[in-house]
Amino acid sequence: MKILVINAGSSSLKYQLFDMTDETVLAKGLCERIGQDGKIKHTAFDGRTYEASYDMPTHSEAFNCLVYALTESDAKVIDSMSEISAVGHRIVQGGYIFSQSTLVDQKVLEDIEMLSELAPLHNKAHAMGIRACLNVLGDKVPQVCVFDTSFHQTMPPKAYIYPVPYEYYEKYKVRRYGFHGTSHRFVSGRAAEFLNKNLADLKMITCHLGNGCSITAIKGGKCIDTSMGFTPLDGIMMGTRSGSLDPSVITYIAEKENISPKEMCDLLNKKSGVLGISKVSNDNRDVSNAAKEGNENAALAIEMQRYQIAKFIGGYVAALNGLDVLVFTGGIGENDPSLREDICQSYLTYLGIKIDREKNLERGKEVEISTADSKVKVLVIPTNEELLIARDTMKIVSAL
Amino acid sequence: MKILVINAGSSSLKYQLFDMTDETVLAKGLCERIGQDGKIKHTAFDGRTYEASYDMPTHSEAFNCLVYALTESDAKVIDSMSEISAVGHRIVQGGYIFSQSTLVDQKVLEDIEMLSELAPLHNKAHAMGIRACLNVLGDKVPQVCVFDTSFHQTMPPKAYIYPVPYEYYEKYKVRRYGFHGTSHRFVSGRAAEFLNKNLADLKMITCHLGNGCSITAIKGGKCIDTSMGFTPLDGIMMGTRSGSLDPSVITYIAEKENISPKEMCDLLNKKSGVLGISKVSNDNRDVSNAAKEGNENAALAIEMQRYQIAKFIGGYVAALNGLDVLVFTGGIGENDPSLREDICQSYLTYLGIKIDREKNLERGKEVEISTADSKVKVLVIPTNEELLIARDTMKIVSAL
Repeated sequence: MKILVINAGSSSLKYQLFDMTDETVLAKGLCERIGQDGKIKHTAFDGRTYEASYDMPTHSEAFNCLVYALTESDAKVIDSMSEISAVGHRIVQGGYIFSQSTLVDQKVLEDIEMLSELAPLHNKAHAMGIRACLNVLGDKVPQVCVFDTSFHQTMPPKAYIYPVPYEYYEKYKVRRYGFHGTSHRFVSGRAAEFLNKNLADLKMITCHLGNGCSITAIKGGKCIDTSMGFTPLDGIMMGTRSGSLDPSVITYIAEKENISPKEMCDLLNKKSGVLGISKVSNDNRDVSNAAKEGNENAALAIEMQRYQIAKFIGGYVAALNGLDVLVFTGGIGENDPSLREDICQSYLTYLGIKIDREKNLERGKEVEISTADSKVKVLVIPTNEELLIARDTMKIVSAL
Repeated sequence: MKILVINAGSSSLKYQLFDMTDETVLAKGLCERIGQDGKIKHTAFDGRTYEASYDMPTHSEAFNCLVYALTESDAKVIDSMSEISAVGHRIVQGGYIFSQSTLVDQKVLEDIEMLSELAPLHNKAHAMGIRACLNVLGDKVPQVCVFDTSFHQTMPPKAYIYPVPYEYYEKYKVRRYGFHGTSHRFVSGRAAEFLNKNLADLKMITCHLGNGCSITAIKGGKCIDTSMGFTPLDGIMMGTRSGSLDPSVITYIAEKENISPKEMCDLLNKKSGVLGISKVSNDNRDVSNAAKEGNENAALAIEMQRYQIAKFIGGYVAALNGLDVLVFTGGIGENDPSLREDICQSYLTYLGIKIDREKNLERGKEVEISTADSKVKVLVIPTNEELLIARDTMKIVSAL
């Protein structure tokens, strides 16, 4: 069975085509600058590439371009779209409605658009991706939505209600939703497999650390708490995002600088975090290099972020009342041995965590970085959200 | 040596007169409704009381009234104010300027007023209290300021810098200051004495839980992190305060409800927290009772607050990389056995904490509530900020 996985942004459309017999990627690519001019970059499993500029006024033209790349270009990997059994879509915000992956129908599409209110940039684009798919492939090809939020729907109210007047939850559904759920679900499942243990028996914390960062507490395979919240701005400081704050910091700066809520949202999403403190970059590699060259703000940004991650892990150990497995994933989590070592050695040895410094030097690989006698297993598990979307899609369409 | 301790609010003046030979309280009282009409309630050590209405247009008239109560009323405890060696003032915000208790001079008074920018309600009132004292007693009686923030000045930048653009720290001194410092300092010192251990050897977390709540991580007697921040709104949810939030919650509600920064500040300080969730009260006793009668929102508010406290404790255990002593203090911390048991048993047994359920039933008393074999000592230590202010004052004036 071949499954196409789509991640539609407001001006982009990312895709991967999976052959599910062996879960390999046949091709992947990206359509960019949709609504402006349009450009596609496509790579086949064997290294062949296809790049072109196309007029892409909407996601439908981008989708047509993707079809050409897959079926007719020099880097084609299939003869016809009829070989594709189903399409899986990544959807950022499933809100309070979607607690699991779902087959697309008219109602589902409307609900996703309705939830745009809670994720304006993302859900509208996802809906455009689904409609483009419908326009080009017709309604014979089943489409499945996999939500970033659905893994977190098992959180209890004590974790998802914010301590603001309860009426805002009732009126506007302001609550913690959590994001990166597909990643946390993937790596937690894979971690249990890797350890040859039953997920149901484990207390686990998964750290998805990339330009966006989130940490999740998982008990018996179910999310009980997560650091991103109403939006992906909550939790720990990230590349350009502040994470959670003393609300007075916000109202004070808003008054002093005469900033509107919209501008404040922009400031805290795009100019804060590692970038805001370091004044160098939102990319940890650049900031680490600057720190090594003596830039004090860069060093502070790195130190702050590690400290906040460690405190969140500590908080979730309390939420779980114990810990069996700690997982690092995401661009930083998979590729920054220094961060992993610092967090584990400076802050977490009280848990009986011991790191094998040699093994911890690995980057981007599935590896246990704790020693044999460490009381908590510490793993690096490269995430693969697209594969999980493909698996969910296969499971749902196979049952039709 | 007799020392008068003053806590001046915007329309109130609280006081305690200490005899420092045995650290007993000779009298205490409260002037209220300053600037409106004026009322004093005064109680002597032996139970005699004095109550009266007075015209109190400013803090100076209130101070005169206090002098009358102490020296001439039916509940008088001294013959003349000349018996008082010094006055100690509680000051909420010492900002980045005051890292320890300080003798008042013109410059100090100006600095306190200058810091009003960071604590408008409190510091202006404190300055009025100091001036009233000067007006009535003259400048022969030394006055000392003890700051809620100064204990927290040992925090490292990774704990006190917020991950917003660094320029706001440089321009407006937006950073974590922490509050309740006098309480955290008092109970941490007392806890070490109680255990007959050296404070310098201990990793300690002190939980000041009252209508305002703050939690502090203390390493070797020095604060390394604390939950209140730029203002006392940061950290865990409190009686009426939200604690820290996803900033998007704030900007979203501000836009939806068309609320200004000032109104938002009010909403998050006065209508949120336990009151906002329970819709019953900001007083945990009322809310607990409502929860027992089946009110689900009340039960949720109690559960949320305990959960947040547990997570903050867990986070600070990571910040300290271990824990020797956990201290509960403040109105709730000293008097709510159910909260203490729930936090320790539901969330913290992984630390080897064991609670003695009998001992934990004590209220408002200094008591070790952990069992002999608990790996972390858990104590209840009633706080006494006024006594610490009196001690600091005595120490400073004795050295003059």
